[in-house]
Amino acid sequence: VVWLFLKARLLELEAKKPIVILNKEDAEELGVKALDRVELDPDGKEVIAIVNVAEKFISKGEIGLYDSVQDQLNVKEGKKIDVNPAEAPESLSFIVKKLAGKDLRSLEIRKIVEDVVKHRLSEIEITAFITSLHIHGLTMNEAAYLSTHMATTGDILRLKNKEIYDKHSIGGIPGDKTTLLVVPMVAVAGLTIPKTSSRAITSPAGTADRVECLCPVDLELEEIKKVIEKTNACMVWGGAVDLAPADDVFIQVEYPLSIDPLLLPSVMSKKKAVQAKYIVIDMPTGKGTKMKTISDYQELAAQFIGLGKKLGINVACASTFGEQPIGYAIGPALEAREALETIMRGKGISDLIDKAVNLASILFDFKHLKNSKTYALKLLTSGKVEKKFREIIEAQGGNPSIKPGDLSVGSKTIEIKSNASGKVFWINNAAIAQIARAAGAPKDKGAGILLSKKIGDSVKGGETLFKIYAEKNYKLNRALRIANELDVIGIGKKLEMLLAKIPEEKEHKKYFILER
Amino acid sequence: VVWLFLKARLLELEAKKPIVILNKEDAEELGVKALDRVELDPDGKEVIAIVNVAEKFISKGEIGLYDSVQDQLNVKEGKKIDVNPAEAPESLSFIVKKLAGKDLRSLEIRKIVEDVVKHRLSEIEITAFITSLHIHGLTMNEAAYLSTHMATTGDILRLKNKEIYDKHSIGGIPGDKTTLLVVPMVAVAGLTIPKTSSRAITSPAGTADRVECLCPVDLELEEIKKVIEKTNACMVWGGAVDLAPADDVFIQVEYPLSIDPLLLPSVMSKKKAVQAKYIVIDMPTGKGTKMKTISDYQELAAQFIGLGKKLGINVACASTFGEQPIGYAIGPALEAREALETIMRGKGISDLIDKAVNLASILFDFKHLKNSKTYALKLLTSGKVEKKFREIIEAQGGNPSIKPGDLSVGSKTIEIKSNASGKVFWINNAAIAQIARAAGAPKDKGAGILLSKKIGDSVKGGETLFKIYAEKNYKLNRALRIANELDVIGIGKKLEMLLAKIPEEKEHKKYFILER
Repeated sequence: VVWLFLKARLLELEAKKPIVILNKEDAEELGVKALDRVELDPDGKEVIAIVNVAEKFISKGEIGLYDSVQDQLNVKEGKKIDVNPAEAPESLSFIVKKLAGKDLRSLEIRKIVEDVVKHRLSEIEITAFITSLHIHGLTMNEAAYLSTHMATTGDILRLKNKEIYDKHSIGGIPGDKTTLLVVPMVAVAGLTIPKTSSRAITSPAGTADRVECLCPVDLELEEIKKVIEKTNACMVWGGAVDLAPADDVFIQVEYPLSIDPLLLPSVMSKKKAVQAKYIVIDMPTGKGTKMKTISDYQELAAQFIGLGKKLGINVACASTFGEQPIGYAIGPALEAREALETIMRGKGISDLIDKAVNLASILFDFKHLKNSKTYALKLLTSGKVEKKFREIIEAQGGNPSIKPGDLSVGSKTIEIKSNASGKVFWINNAAIAQIARAAGAPKDKGAGILLSKKIGDSVKGGETLFKIYAEKNYKLNRALRIANELDVIGIGKKLEMLLAKIPEEKEHKKYFILER
Repeated sequence: VVWLFLKARLLELEAKKPIVILNKEDAEELGVKALDRVELDPDGKEVIAIVNVAEKFISKGEIGLYDSVQDQLNVKEGKKIDVNPAEAPESLSFIVKKLAGKDLRSLEIRKIVEDVVKHRLSEIEITAFITSLHIHGLTMNEAAYLSTHMATTGDILRLKNKEIYDKHSIGGIPGDKTTLLVVPMVAVAGLTIPKTSSRAITSPAGTADRVECLCPVDLELEEIKKVIEKTNACMVWGGAVDLAPADDVFIQVEYPLSIDPLLLPSVMSKKKAVQAKYIVIDMPTGKGTKMKTISDYQELAAQFIGLGKKLGINVACASTFGEQPIGYAIGPALEAREALETIMRGKGISDLIDKAVNLASILFDFKHLKNSKTYALKLLTSGKVEKKFREIIEAQGGNPSIKPGDLSVGSKTIEIKSNASGKVFWINNAAIAQIARAAGAPKDKGAGILLSKKIGDSVKGGETLFKIYAEKNYKLNRALRIANELDVIGIGKKLEMLLAKIPEEKEHKKYFILER
């Protein structure tokens, strides 16, 4: 093998992938091109890095190191490093096998997932894997192998002598703060529910963003264990722990392509990583959701239940009405406030309470608790859920006495009023999400929307339909412009039958009059 | 739209893609993530760049610019730049369409190719396109659209009042220096042949590497035109001109995945870009080539001819024997020397001459020249090809009086001898290429292999099979080790029928004794 001794230059550049920059001449001497791999310090640390090539930025005899490579090698500026060309990892041949439409075996998937986690595969190679899975599909066995290996290549939350319960939502509905009610409801019934959640990617708020308005969510694994030992539950951000870490890498490829071939393994690997035995999966269904029809739901539910069987996890699925936001609040602080108020009052927001009670009761049914729905509702109205909720907040480092008024929401607001009278026939989930994001959510925690009307409500001309909250004026204006452009809420006296025609009318209908 | 004014920091980092680095907080403020796009200077230059995110390397309020972005914006360190989030390009939706298995229309393919050339699509997005084409396949219409748009998004070689002839080889055979004979042979017959060639990617020498031993090959478009006006031909490196530039971007994705869904458009777009009307495509066939069987060849040939009809190009295909190197020399200088010697003598290396004469005669047949093979051979033996060859060398800036002895080959050599007697039954093309590359080819122009024996030749124990040339001792040793490990040349008294068995013998047969 040819090798070179090159002088380390520390670039202080961050990247998740281990990247080094070689001078063009040195790269040619080694016989490597951009995106090929080199092995650094082969007799010692054996670090594999991906090659970038520069003509001027790095001189002949130098090697530029990104932060992650510097950390792995633990070298200082100017240190000589032994650099070898490295073969493509074995896992690449398994990706090429899937590309050719062949099923992969457990060991082959394990190698791929390991190399993904170790950042030994390039974006090109990972994208080829993801698009192959998308086009060719996964067998149930492949989904099981992926779930298992995605879990075992990360940390595992080990809780002794506990049967673990969990809930998951496939998402897509703005304002869905159901988890904040379900987790204390399940925990107060004596079941253990270590809930990890994500932050928003394309939505105005993820569960982690909501909970963060009440207490810290970026706890480490040992801290999470202590919270669960104290309270039977937690509500933490999954990104702060290393559970099924390959998933984050896959998402970075799936997101720009709007594909999600790993939906099942992605969910189930996280559940494997917390050693869940019983889970309920919420699948919001209908117009404006990911499941357009009940038969879509039935098919996906059957797949989840089948995969659960292979993995030793008991899965129940719930189709829930998803054609409008849950409750009235959209945006991290507005939603946290609505959830806290509802938990404190034990009544009020009927769709939110109904959904939480139903999902909790499905978990209770695994335990054969009697009259599970009545029981769940009683826990809420009795104040026990509130007590448990505040215990969890305290255990995670928040203020257990927090009041709804302590949650600060955006001070820049505008009300959107109706210029028509009639009934609300539909609410556009995507438009609501877009406006709330334009107003600053989820980054500005106080930004969002408070609906005044929901489907079936009567509206008079001039009545407020919703109020936009923002922390900054320019974001309020931006949200307002978008609210003006989109069809957000459909109001009519009778159902209008024409949905679209070709050629279409170019003129945009304005449903709203605006008022500061 | 939200925007920020950020202070330019010039990173002096090279990348073909337009990359900027934002501080994490500014990225969140803009609502963009890593690999999203921003528009810079929207009221002026309207440069689109791909976002990287840093926490420390770039401070809040700064924007780090890679060289290509700096060049496009033409800004200095510290200049304030208006930065806006930008939508994903429309072409991404067409990639997603192909990902779903739907055929693309001409305009859709045009948008994709344009954005590839402008580096507006990320590696993830381009990989999704390439893998979709690989898995779903291309229709003949899609192949035609790709060929056309890949050509028109680059430079076009416009030669007035000329009918353009061209040749292409799908490659794969070490030592194939046929082009060096065909080009002057065709030009001396009065046909115009503007030959652009590639450098080696995985082989020991590309045609551009071979010709570069005789004269410069990195000519610009205007220089190429002058060479052709003078000589009716050229032999230049395609990488120095901007003909069908999308191809280079696609190759960077195809290479690590070992897939080549764009083979047809890749070849035909280059031919469109030189406005070729008649082309011959050489398809080396047999063991150790890309076309394992005659029926593989027939299928690909039919596709090339059909695509040519759609594009207004007359295509002829030739299946040529490819189970061993062409001639005896492998490596840039060794091959250039062998080609020059053969052109000067007009005889000698029979397979090389036969192949060149056949390919030239196929082009002559388009022109209805009589007895085209006899005519081609006569041009060679008469010395006219040599005269034309030297004219082309001179026009490209080389020494027209160059002699074979002027070409310097590696001074470190070793002969590999046979320890068996019998006949050569086979030569392993891949092993020959690997040894020549280990010896330093194509980077070290004098490195390579000179065969002493070819298929059918008789060999006595102790006779030299081939000689390895290198410019550096450690590369010679490296080549030697590989020669020792691989089955390079098969020698036997009768054909041995057993190819392999399972479980296999672990012991490796040594065919060679080594001697310095």
